[in-house]
Amino acid sequence: MDAASRIERSLSVAVGLSQTRGCPPRLAQAMHHAVFPGGARVRPRLCLAVAAANGGAPAGVAEAAAAAIELLHCASLVHDDLPCFDDAATRRGRPSVHRAFGEPLAVLAGDALIVAAFQALLQGAAAAPAQLPLLMEVVCGAAGVPFGIAAGQAWECEEEADLSVYEQQKTGSLFAAAAVAGAAACGAPAEAWRPFGAALGEAYQVADDLRDALSDAAELGKPVGQDAAHGRPNAVRSFGVAGAVARLRDIAGQAIEAIPPCPEAASLRALVGLEVKRLMPQRAAAVAA
Amino acid sequence: MDAASRIERSLSVAVGLSQTRGCPPRLAQAMHHAVFPGGARVRPRLCLAVAAANGGAPAGVAEAAAAAIELLHCASLVHDDLPCFDDAATRRGRPSVHRAFGEPLAVLAGDALIVAAFQALLQGAAAAPAQLPLLMEVVCGAAGVPFGIAAGQAWECEEEADLSVYEQQKTGSLFAAAAVAGAAACGAPAEAWRPFGAALGEAYQVADDLRDALSDAAELGKPVGQDAAHGRPNAVRSFGVAGAVARLRDIAGQAIEAIPPCPEAASLRALVGLEVKRLMPQRAAAVAA
Repeated sequence: MDAASRIERSLSVAVGLSQTRGCPPRLAQAMHHAVFPGGARVRPRLCLAVAAANGGAPAGVAEAAAAAIELLHCASLVHDDLPCFDDAATRRGRPSVHRAFGEPLAVLAGDALIVAAFQALLQGAAAAPAQLPLLMEVVCGAAGVPFGIAAGQAWECEEEADLSVYEQQKTGSLFAAAAVAGAAACGAPAEAWRPFGAALGEAYQVADDLRDALSDAAELGKPVGQDAAHGRPNAVRSFGVAGAVARLRDIAGQAIEAIPPCPEAASLRALVGLEVKRLMPQRAAAVAA
Repeated sequence: MDAASRIERSLSVAVGLSQTRGCPPRLAQAMHHAVFPGGARVRPRLCLAVAAANGGAPAGVAEAAAAAIELLHCASLVHDDLPCFDDAATRRGRPSVHRAFGEPLAVLAGDALIVAAFQALLQGAAAAPAQLPLLMEVVCGAAGVPFGIAAGQAWECEEEADLSVYEQQKTGSLFAAAAVAGAAACGAPAEAWRPFGAALGEAYQVADDLRDALSDAAELGKPVGQDAAHGRPNAVRSFGVAGAVARLRDIAGQAIEAIPPCPEAASLRALVGLEVKRLMPQRAAAVAA
């Protein structure tokens, strides 16, 4: 089964808990809406790619870590879209969860998805219980305080914020965790993978900034120009389109350099090259050419 | 060290993660505000009481489980107080988190407290790693879907809800989990403790309904008459004050009956008797006498 199918299956199992008789059906629908159909699933694909580069993990373990990370990402999108943050009407080309199900269910669906991440991890770790504590540590660190996505998002509520710290926590932390968890699932030295994951997160952030600046809403599936509207930092506003494109290529090179020694390093390098090509908006590449 | 001090210390360690340099300071303040000073800490005290009744757990394990459950409870209070739910201005005699810090930080503090629950569990389980999977299962089950507090709260968003299912999930699940986790921390048969915890949860719910109906806001530290205002089920509305008092005594008796065989059952029975006395609002006891 290919990586994409393994990810979807693993997410289905986790979200499927809400389909149990006795669970409020609209909460189950809201959770499903938040997770399916997904976006590019870039974080869980990263997790599985690092596991593959390390020779593979026991059945189900890397998939569970990948699902946990994607569920945390989906939870954060649901809460970030709330009226008190971005008040986004659309996400992935469909109504945001609070627009489709109301604010109360959006808050609760986000909460339940955070818990579902740990449920996924627990279930997946049944095949490798010795890996559970490290995987939990990695996932907790990426999600909560002091440096996870909740912390990153909270910098938007401070009078002063360091742009690089904000981006590392809000975006970088889940990417770094995806890479570390992929290695941890295999029982390989895991922390060595953090710089690779963090660099990919940074590349993704720059690519997202380029798309936010250059795409239209129909293409993007969510409102555009959000960073400008909310006065948020953005690589295109800082460096211009050509500068941001150069920065994306530069960071991608750093990511490839940062790959630790592992059995399948060459395949992983090739995969990163393809991913960066996919990330680069065509219009941006044309502008910068 | 007595149970209360062990609980506060364990909560301090968990919330203290947010005091790390590099964590947004207002998020750290909001999390602290949500947890300290606490209420009666009835769930973590239940967890430690069950652990003690089972002869005690390895150092730190029961305290971590107790803290995890209290952190989930605090997180749910922060989110339940949000404008889209109860829009409560006060909690424990002080401004609710969203009134003190704004809605975005209330959402994020709740999220981070959910994660902190798992961080506490992970740290505490270092002394007994074999107990971690079961403790995680218990805590996840009490928090998320299909039957945890997020599910319970979500019944408020359904057209039709079974009152008993709603209360079991919204209130009972954390009490049941507190009892089960207390036994699990000791490596004792754990599921046998669920009916005891669930009965105490029900007793607590009835006591809360009595206080909601009989107290004034200053005494209660939060708005009164909330159930009537939100059209929510309430034992006093269903049975009257005298009926609710009789029901509380009845359920307390059931809880004591449900205590599984354990080394310190007699002490636990005495403790439950004291707790029910504490739970019974004086005015209610007088009305029913």
